[in-house]
Amino acid sequence: MQIARVCGTVVSNQKEPSLMGVKFLLLQLLDAEGKPMPEYEVAADSVGAGLDEWVLVSRGSAARQTSSSEVRPLDALVVGIIDTVSVENYLLYSKRDQDR
Amino acid sequence: MQIARVCGTVVSNQKEPSLMGVKFLLLQLLDAEGKPMPEYEVAADSVGAGLDEWVLVSRGSAARQTSSSEVRPLDALVVGIIDTVSVENYLLYSKRDQDR
Amino acid sequence: MQIARVCGTVVSNQKEPSLMGVKFLLLQLLDAEGKPMPEYEVAADSVGAGLDEWVLVSRGSAARQTSSSEVRPLDALVVGIIDTVSVENYLLYSKRDQDR
Amino acid sequence: MQIARVCGTVVSNQKEPSLMGVKFLLLQLLDAEGKPMPEYEVAADSVGAGLDEWVLVSRGSAARQTSSSEVRPLDALVVGIIDTVSVENYLLYSKRDQDR
Amino acid sequence: MQIARVCGTVVSNQKEPSLMGVKFLLLQLLDAEGKPMPEYEVAADSVGAGLDEWVLVSRGSAARQTSSSEVRPLDALVVGIIDTVSVENYLLYSKRDQDR
Repeated sequence: MQIARVCGTVVSNQKEPSLMGVKFLLLQLLDAEGKPMPEYEVAADSVGAGLDEWVLVSRGSAARQTSSSEVRPLDALVVGIIDTVSVENYLLYSKRDQDR
Repeated sequence: MQIARVCGTVVSNQKEPSLMGVKFLLLQLLDAEGKPMPEYEVAADSVGAGLDEWVLVSRGSAARQTSSSEVRPLDALVVGIIDTVSVENYLLYSKRDQDR
Repeated sequence: MQIARVCGTVVSNQKEPSLMGVKFLLLQLLDAEGKPMPEYEVAADSVGAGLDEWVLVSRGSAARQTSSSEVRPLDALVVGIIDTVSVENYLLYSKRDQDR
Repeated sequence: MQIARVCGTVVSNQKEPSLMGVKFLLLQLLDAEGKPMPEYEVAADSVGAGLDEWVLVSRGSAARQTSSSEVRPLDALVVGIIDTVSVENYLLYSKRDQDR
Repeated sequence: MQIARVCGTVVSNQKEPSLMGVKFLLLQLLDAEGKPMPEYEVAADSVGAGLDEWVLVSRGSAARQTSSSEVRPLDALVVGIIDTVSVENYLLYSKRDQDR
């Protein structure tokens, strides 16, 4: 999985019927130091992530390994909202600090 | 998924029999600011996208998760025509503005 | 799919038994302007492509979505010989012109 | 597979139900000379790897080819703790030396 | 598939039970001119490749399309030992010349 920050949304009305009702989040991928990378991903959301939150995104066929996304043409899925990222015993990110 | 602009078409007559009747769109991938990237993708079209429209493209096995593309050697599929892209509460792209 | 030019062949005699009889083409990937990229792919051929022809190559599990390649450890397949590539209503490539 | 060093952990409480109880390791990918690359991966751990250990990470659908990870939206898995890496008959890495 | 040179081995004792007995080769990926690329791959070996030999490596789910690797978390497999690579009718590599 990659670490990403929710930075926006994408709306599409004319789409694959199986994608009706799916919310698409625009994710800015972050590097291992938490800095934004040029890469982004438009991913379906399975956990109710909001703007600015850090999330884990799974890509490829992994994006369809849930009860709700199995038969949909999805290649990216937000699978979790991140609480903490620890690097070399140092706390790089904490959602609690962010929310204050 | 990635955001892409439809920039052309590819025609192939001598091809895998299962691909007969499939329309191939040439897609210019766009970055999270809507600028063209060097990357492109030739994708099957499932939604009737036209030249210059912004679309969502799914890659990998996701491209075969539709009733029409399951048993075809496709690795990219246009899954939706984009109406709006919002980044940090700013409207980066709106199809309505584009169509005027 | 990506656009590629057939630029050679790879021969392997000591290989996975399921790959016996499979012809491996060396493909030079092309960018959206038809210029060679550093990337290449060794792909199985399902359509009888010849040297210098432009082809469409599918990668990943898509390479096994044919009657002949389903149970083989292939991750790239030539799925079509390209007749034309049109970009922004301009004819970038035409096999007919190439063959003259 | 890629060679990586365990450099941290990621904690997520609000996540896909199927990922409950899965430990996420932050992996720094290493190049063939053992030097850190900018790339990282957040992977599930199947072997009990600890901080600073070198591991093998499988990505894509491979990450779900175990009894415990089959129906989970995982795209990366630590599949082994590395004992030695030998390059051109030279011992690049030995866990035993590291542990001393 | 990609062309690679066998440049080493990786040994892991503490690993996924399904990988017991699998030999891991360290592969240096080569470009279309036979020059080493920074990319490498740790792959299972299905053909008995030795140090310095040029091989074809399949990645992704292709690595599990053999009788022996189907239920293992592998994402890379050596599928053939290369005898010759011909580029534009020029013989880039020949195993026979290499072995002399």
